[in-house]
Amino acid sequence: MKFHRTADSYTQGARTMPGEFYTSPDIFVEEQERIFARVWNAVGRASAIARPGDYVLRDVAGESIMLVRDKGGALRAHFNVCRHRGTRLCTEPSGHLETIQCPYHAWTYGTDGRLIGAPHMQQVEGFNRAEFSLHAAAVAEHEGFVFVNIDRHPASFADGFAPMLERLTRYRIGALTVGHRVVYDVHANWKLVFQNYSECLHCPVIHPELAAVLPYQSGENDLVAGPFLGGSMEITPPNESATLSGRACGPLVNPALGDAARGRAFYYSLMPNMLVSIHPDYVNYYLITPIAVNRTMVESEWLFPEADEASTNRQDAIAFWDVTNRQDWDIVARSQLGIQSRRYEPGPYSPRESIPAAWDREYLKMMGRD
Amino acid sequence: MKFHRTADSYTQGARTMPGEFYTSPDIFVEEQERIFARVWNAVGRASAIARPGDYVLRDVAGESIMLVRDKGGALRAHFNVCRHRGTRLCTEPSGHLETIQCPYHAWTYGTDGRLIGAPHMQQVEGFNRAEFSLHAAAVAEHEGFVFVNIDRHPASFADGFAPMLERLTRYRIGALTVGHRVVYDVHANWKLVFQNYSECLHCPVIHPELAAVLPYQSGENDLVAGPFLGGSMEITPPNESATLSGRACGPLVNPALGDAARGRAFYYSLMPNMLVSIHPDYVNYYLITPIAVNRTMVESEWLFPEADEASTNRQDAIAFWDVTNRQDWDIVARSQLGIQSRRYEPGPYSPRESIPAAWDREYLKMMGRD
Amino acid sequence: MKFHRTADSYTQGARTMPGEFYTSPDIFVEEQERIFARVWNAVGRASAIARPGDYVLRDVAGESIMLVRDKGGALRAHFNVCRHRGTRLCTEPSGHLETIQCPYHAWTYGTDGRLIGAPHMQQVEGFNRAEFSLHAAAVAEHEGFVFVNIDRHPASFADGFAPMLERLTRYRIGALTVGHRVVYDVHANWKLVFQNYSECLHCPVIHPELAAVLPYQSGENDLVAGPFLGGSMEITPPNESATLSGRACGPLVNPALGDAARGRAFYYSLMPNMLVSIHPDYVNYYLITPIAVNRTMVESEWLFPEADEASTNRQDAIAFWDVTNRQDWDIVARSQLGIQSRRYEPGPYSPRESIPAAWDREYLKMMGRD
Repeated sequence: MKFHRTADSYTQGARTMPGEFYTSPDIFVEEQERIFARVWNAVGRASAIARPGDYVLRDVAGESIMLVRDKGGALRAHFNVCRHRGTRLCTEPSGHLETIQCPYHAWTYGTDGRLIGAPHMQQVEGFNRAEFSLHAAAVAEHEGFVFVNIDRHPASFADGFAPMLERLTRYRIGALTVGHRVVYDVHANWKLVFQNYSECLHCPVIHPELAAVLPYQSGENDLVAGPFLGGSMEITPPNESATLSGRACGPLVNPALGDAARGRAFYYSLMPNMLVSIHPDYVNYYLITPIAVNRTMVESEWLFPEADEASTNRQDAIAFWDVTNRQDWDIVARSQLGIQSRRYEPGPYSPRESIPAAWDREYLKMMGRD
Repeated sequence: MKFHRTADSYTQGARTMPGEFYTSPDIFVEEQERIFARVWNAVGRASAIARPGDYVLRDVAGESIMLVRDKGGALRAHFNVCRHRGTRLCTEPSGHLETIQCPYHAWTYGTDGRLIGAPHMQQVEGFNRAEFSLHAAAVAEHEGFVFVNIDRHPASFADGFAPMLERLTRYRIGALTVGHRVVYDVHANWKLVFQNYSECLHCPVIHPELAAVLPYQSGENDLVAGPFLGGSMEITPPNESATLSGRACGPLVNPALGDAARGRAFYYSLMPNMLVSIHPDYVNYYLITPIAVNRTMVESEWLFPEADEASTNRQDAIAFWDVTNRQDWDIVARSQLGIQSRRYEPGPYSPRESIPAAWDREYLKMMGRD
Repeated sequence: MKFHRTADSYTQGARTMPGEFYTSPDIFVEEQERIFARVWNAVGRASAIARPGDYVLRDVAGESIMLVRDKGGALRAHFNVCRHRGTRLCTEPSGHLETIQCPYHAWTYGTDGRLIGAPHMQQVEGFNRAEFSLHAAAVAEHEGFVFVNIDRHPASFADGFAPMLERLTRYRIGALTVGHRVVYDVHANWKLVFQNYSECLHCPVIHPELAAVLPYQSGENDLVAGPFLGGSMEITPPNESATLSGRACGPLVNPALGDAARGRAFYYSLMPNMLVSIHPDYVNYYLITPIAVNRTMVESEWLFPEADEASTNRQDAIAFWDVTNRQDWDIVARSQLGIQSRRYEPGPYSPRESIPAAWDREYLKMMGRD
């Protein structure tokens, strides 16, 4: 992997976005249609639906999606809507099922979405079951992460995800398991969460503990344009990882990691709804769901390699980020409040904010504002 | 009374309505103006205001209406709005009064709505009390049920209600008294409540207890088009009524009921806000008030003939429907959720859903969409 | 001061305003822009920020304003918005500070609003600190009351406030101190609060205790047109003041008050957000903040002259108005409910409602509806 230093010239003249992008309900709706309903959204870990018949419910662009492992072992993403009278088929967030039966009039579907039973419909002239399969969304998997695209004509996942492939592979993230989960309710626009993740200029002010481990001036960005952005920071010796104690919280995610990878932590934002933080000994990631112009749900999971408990201290990594995250949610909520002012106007980004500036550019392009 | 079997051909090709009718706030407002503010709404039982001076407050199309029995014994429906500065005259849900006095500046009206006192207004040149009576809504009574129409030019009640007259008369509903009342908060559009009431195809799935007493295939509809819809179901012998035990919960509503009427239960929906369920031994009815696109208030009362307590078991009828109702509110709330999906589209009605299909047609006609 | 009796002819034909002014969210937004964001708003007492570095947060037309006494002793009104990324600088409602530092990336401002520090911005070509002072609102002080105007081109305070100057001066209100504070949550449009304050025709009905002390027929209005309106009422002997007991609650606000002033109480409404009630022995005032079409915050403070506790009974004045205020909030909430009716229409004002009528005229003029 080749690292490029961010060119200082890149942000000369760049400014934050106009306030309406953070306050307008019309733009909120437009984002759902232009971005979330068109592109690949991360929806969590495939391990949650390991066996045929397992399912979880996930929201994508406001749609309830049943993510099911079908009887053939394939991943399926069904719209959670009966084709008869529109009833939501399933309301339990996760479970196991043999068939998908609507609780209203008993229309019944296979795990693959095909309609297999519909009482009294045989009396309707010309009724053809094959026309009433559950509506399907596209689904893809990479390194244990599952992605869904609800567009009727989804773009290729492999093409779009290419820039991330090599960056994730050497960490063997597919072999890691979920060790902790927190859901945060953030009182700010979802874009402020991305921008906050994308720079560490605020770290000495907001996160004094973190700044001691990961010096904000050590950032080296290796993805500086497009939907995926980010790079790495140095883990200051003698610290071994981003933990409260500074020590590794367990074995390496991949024992074959080289020295360079052991001394750095990687932080990537993946448009439109994912943040991935990769450390030598653990990975944590975030799914970002816009709820309203000033409200965002953030689901966070910590992934660890298998190890016996005596040799690990996972809480050391969990607490480090839980504290840091809450500091970030506080400050973005304050940004939201200020940006709502009539007098807010785009302010100047510094060279240390080149990634937020690049993120804004990509967002505006997706919104057709470039 | 002549019964017509529903023609199966009637629903060939019929589909549920587009999603916007269940989700659009604009259509919600339009329904209030085009339907509820123009037609006769049921508002409850006349027995609640038996004596001159008795009143109850009722909401019709979002309007607070004072339903008053005036000093001459006539029913009156006054808009609850002072003609001086618009103050709501009355906020207690029911009571008894000699005159209607505004609590702000003491403008005073008779129970018939005429202004009889207005301090200092005699100093205003040309002020004429007779021009400032309370605004009146039209009011009608049938078999103890009261109906209100807030349109400035209301259609004739007698003409509109004609199809129901003979159907209710033989049950002597006017002589029944209220034995129980429940108010339900339903998380679904009001039209889903009507559609749910209008078919029993869902009964074997949702209401196994009910289906044992009232076989869904026994339905015979006798009102299959227009604002009033419905018909009867067979009470399976040896059951005597729709109760938990299957036994009658008391004497017949009318001892002169013929054998045919004793063996059937009748279910009618009355556009725009009433459902009436008639059993040999009791009647229960529902008033449907839309609160929001996805919220509906349902007020339910059970009516019984006078009888000594030892010979009755009213709870047997009350619990039967209270359980059934709650099962229905659960399923319509799930329909509401699914219909909100981008991918929801009108689905095919089966021959067993001819009444919902007819109800939709009447609704669309009233909305000017036919 | 010369008093004019209200001409009865003034209100001949006057009617209350159309309902949309009390119910339309669009008009609510328009009022914020046309009125509150353009004119001088009262924001409280200067004594709250007595020392250099003291500040309080106040909302004006939905804007969070930092009201600061700067290091030079001058009053400043800063928009609470960082010029970098828009973050709200300060969230504690009051306090003391040496500089104003943004908690996100440490941009730092003097108490006078000038930017004095901005990390890494010196690397941005052409960045000039002088262009990034905090946005300022205009501020003025009179008799201890502070006023803010957030318009970019504010009108002269002295010119606009001229009609009130002589009326307040003889009461030495600047020397009074705050003895009590209550914040009320009123479920009515803000204009109903003004109209309610502007007439006492309702007093015999709503406030029997008050009417005994201040006969509603004794009102003499001395400001009968324009943004400031009101006049005086006689304090019925042997009562000395508007208190529960009728006795003065302490010494005169100004020992030099003449006999005429001692026998009357003065009630003025100041567009757009202030009510001032002046009694011989105390002053109470109200700040009116619209929250929604049907919701208003009313902040009330009682001001007293300095006096030893043994010679005062402040509770006698506090309770008198607290009871009266709550009666008023109840009745305006009922007006709000009624005015929301389709059938509400402008009703006739009586001669005893000439000030509400004048207030409506001024409001409609500010809204461009005259």
